[in-house]
Amino acid sequence: MFEFRIDAESGAGRAGILALPHGTVATPAFMPVGTQGTVRALSPLDLEKIGAGLVLANTYHLHVRPGEDTVARLGGLHRFMSWGGPLLTDSGGFQVFSLEGLRTVDEDGVEFQSHVDGARRRLTPERAVEIQWTLGADVAMAFDHVAPGRVDQATSRDALERTLRWLERCRARHDALAAGSPGRQTLWPIVQGGIHVALRRASLDGTLAAGDWTGIAVGGLSVGEPKVEMYETLTQLSPRLPRAVPRYLMGVGFPEDLVAGVERGIDLFDCVAPTRNGRNGSAFTDDGVVNIRNAAWKDDPSPLDPACDCETCTRYSRGYLRHLFVAGELLGLRLLSLHNVRYLIRLAGALRREIGKDNLGAWAADWRLRYLNSEAV
Amino acid sequence: MFEFRIDAESGAGRAGILALPHGTVATPAFMPVGTQGTVRALSPLDLEKIGAGLVLANTYHLHVRPGEDTVARLGGLHRFMSWGGPLLTDSGGFQVFSLEGLRTVDEDGVEFQSHVDGARRRLTPERAVEIQWTLGADVAMAFDHVAPGRVDQATSRDALERTLRWLERCRARHDALAAGSPGRQTLWPIVQGGIHVALRRASLDGTLAAGDWTGIAVGGLSVGEPKVEMYETLTQLSPRLPRAVPRYLMGVGFPEDLVAGVERGIDLFDCVAPTRNGRNGSAFTDDGVVNIRNAAWKDDPSPLDPACDCETCTRYSRGYLRHLFVAGELLGLRLLSLHNVRYLIRLAGALRREIGKDNLGAWAADWRLRYLNSEAV
Repeated sequence: MFEFRIDAESGAGRAGILALPHGTVATPAFMPVGTQGTVRALSPLDLEKIGAGLVLANTYHLHVRPGEDTVARLGGLHRFMSWGGPLLTDSGGFQVFSLEGLRTVDEDGVEFQSHVDGARRRLTPERAVEIQWTLGADVAMAFDHVAPGRVDQATSRDALERTLRWLERCRARHDALAAGSPGRQTLWPIVQGGIHVALRRASLDGTLAAGDWTGIAVGGLSVGEPKVEMYETLTQLSPRLPRAVPRYLMGVGFPEDLVAGVERGIDLFDCVAPTRNGRNGSAFTDDGVVNIRNAAWKDDPSPLDPACDCETCTRYSRGYLRHLFVAGELLGLRLLSLHNVRYLIRLAGALRREIGKDNLGAWAADWRLRYLNSEAV
Repeated sequence: MFEFRIDAESGAGRAGILALPHGTVATPAFMPVGTQGTVRALSPLDLEKIGAGLVLANTYHLHVRPGEDTVARLGGLHRFMSWGGPLLTDSGGFQVFSLEGLRTVDEDGVEFQSHVDGARRRLTPERAVEIQWTLGADVAMAFDHVAPGRVDQATSRDALERTLRWLERCRARHDALAAGSPGRQTLWPIVQGGIHVALRRASLDGTLAAGDWTGIAVGGLSVGEPKVEMYETLTQLSPRLPRAVPRYLMGVGFPEDLVAGVERGIDLFDCVAPTRNGRNGSAFTDDGVVNIRNAAWKDDPSPLDPACDCETCTRYSRGYLRHLFVAGELLGLRLLSLHNVRYLIRLAGALRREIGKDNLGAWAADWRLRYLNSEAV
C-alpha cells in the first residue's frame, strides 16, 4: 500500500511510481498545497484536469479551523475537500514555528496562540500524529522542530536532536494507531540540520536508525537561506538518502528549485508559490516569469504560455488575463493559479521523461539557460 | 437571425425559443451578468456546464476599462471573454445614471466621471450604439435615461420622453452600422415610465411607433420601489407588450421576481443577485435563502440544496462550504455563485416546463408558498 518503485535513473535523478491508498503518483511530482483543505482559488475538478497527483493539506490550519473532529464528522479529509486522490498532511511543526507571537518550546511540545482566535493551544508529537490520523491523509509527517534558515550550529543541533527525540514519540503513537488499520496511513520522518552538512548527516543517521520508513522528507530548507546554500546542502545530503524510498523536499517548488532538486535526487515537492504568485499576477513560463499586469499585454491576443495545455492558455489571451487583473476580477486569480500549478506539474512530467531518456543533465542545463536568462516582463 | 417563436403559453406566461447569431435560447431565461466581461467568480466553462444561454456584459464598464477598441483588437466580446454563446450588452444608461459624483444630462447625452480614473467622458445615444457595435454582442440595448424608482410623474415623464427621442437616434445609428453586416447585431428599445401606468403606456406607444423591433425591454424597475409596485406595473403593462417578440425585464432576478415576472409575461431576466449574494454566502434554495456561514452547518454533511445538480451541491457538504466562507477561501465565492446562477437557470427551466403543461399558476403558487414561508437560516 505504501510502495515506491524506481523506473529509471539519470545522474542523481530518479523517475518512480509511488503507490498510496488513494492512488499512485508518478515521480518526480509537484504537490499543490491545500492549506485549509482547498488549494487556493482552485477546485478539486481543476486539480484533476491539470493532472495533480498528491495534494498537501496543513494540519495546523485544519486543527485550528474547522478542527479535526469536524473534518472527521464530515467524512475525513478526502471526503471533506472532495479529493479522491492521495493526500499528505504536514505535521504542523513548520506552521507553529512560523507563528508570530506567543510560542514556547519545551521537551514535551510547543505551546502557541491560534492565529484565528488567539486561544492558547499545545501541539506535542503525539497530538500531531493523532490529529493527522483523525484527518486521514495517506501520508502523515512527523512533528519536527524547525529552526530558521541561518541559525548557528548549536541552535540547529538542538532543534535536530529534539526532532529525533520527537520522532520516536511520533512513531510510537502512529504505530499504536495504525495497528488497528494498517495500510490506512503511513508516517514519514523529516531530516533537519539547516545548512550544516555535519548536522544534516547526524539528523539523517538518527532518522534512519529510528525506523524503517516508507518515505523521507528534507525539512528546514527554503526558510531564508540563499538558494546556492540550499542546493549545496542537497548535493551533500542526497547521496546518503536511502535510495528505495521517495524523498520529499518540503516547502520547495519554484521552477528552478524543482529542476535543481530533481537533479539532486528529490522525488516530491510542495510549495504555495504557484498559487500565491498566481494571485499576484505572476506566471511561470519556460521563458521566465510573466507579470500579467504589464501594460505591454493590453492588446496582446497571444496565450499566456503557448507551450501550455491548461484552460488559461488554451482559451484566453494575455490581453484578457491582464484585464481581469487590472479590473480586480476573481477569475484572474483562478486562471493564473491554475496555469502555475499546471506549469509545475508539466515541468515535473518533463523531468520524468528526460530521466527515462537518461538526458536529465543536458535537458536541465538547456531549460535553465532559457528560464533564467529570459527578460521577465 | 433574430427570431422568436412561442412554443406554449399558460396564463400570461410564455415558453419560447429565441434564435440569435451565436445560438438559441429557450425562454423564460435568466441571464448571468458579466459586468466586466466575466461573470464574477465563474468561468465560461462553468457557465456552459450550468446551462447558461444568453450572457450579459456592461457597456459602461467595458468602455471605461479596457475600452471597446481593446476588446475589438482582442477579437470582439465573444472571443475576448471566451464565450461562444449569445451575448447581450446593456447601453450604459443605467450605469451612468447610477454613478455617484459628476453627471450632467442634456439633450445631447450624458457627461460623467469614470469610476476608474475620474476622467470626464461623454455618452450619447450614437456613442452608446457605436461602442456596442464595436463590442459585437448579439443584442445591443438603446441608450436610455433612467430615473430613480419613486420620482414624481413630471421627472419620470421627462426621462421617458428623452429616452424616446434618444431611441430615434440610436436606431438611426444602429441602422447605418448594421447596413454593412445585417444579422450581426440587433437593437432592442427600453420602455421607461417608473411605476406610473399612464407613463408606461405612453413610453410603450412611442417605442412601438419608432420601429419594428426584434425584442423589447422594460427598464427602470427594481430601482428602489417596493416589489408590489413593480409587480403591479408589470401586471398593467404586460397585456400591451407586443406578443411576438421577447420581453426583457432589466436588472431583475431574485427567485421570487423571476416567478412573478414570468407570470406577467416576461421572457428574459438579468441580475447580479445570484453572484453578489453568492459571494456573501447567501444561497437560493426552494426552501428559501440559506446563509452558509450559519454555525448550524458546521458539522452538516448534507448538500447545500439536495434538489440541485450543480458541482457545489453534488460534491460538497454544507459543513465544507461553511468552512470555506469562515476561512475566507476563494473557492467558497465561486461555489456559491455557481449554485445561485444554476438555481435561477433551473427555476427558469421549471417555469418553462410548467408553461408547457399549462400549469404555471398552480406551480408558481406552490413554489411561492414553500420559498417565501420557509424559515431562512
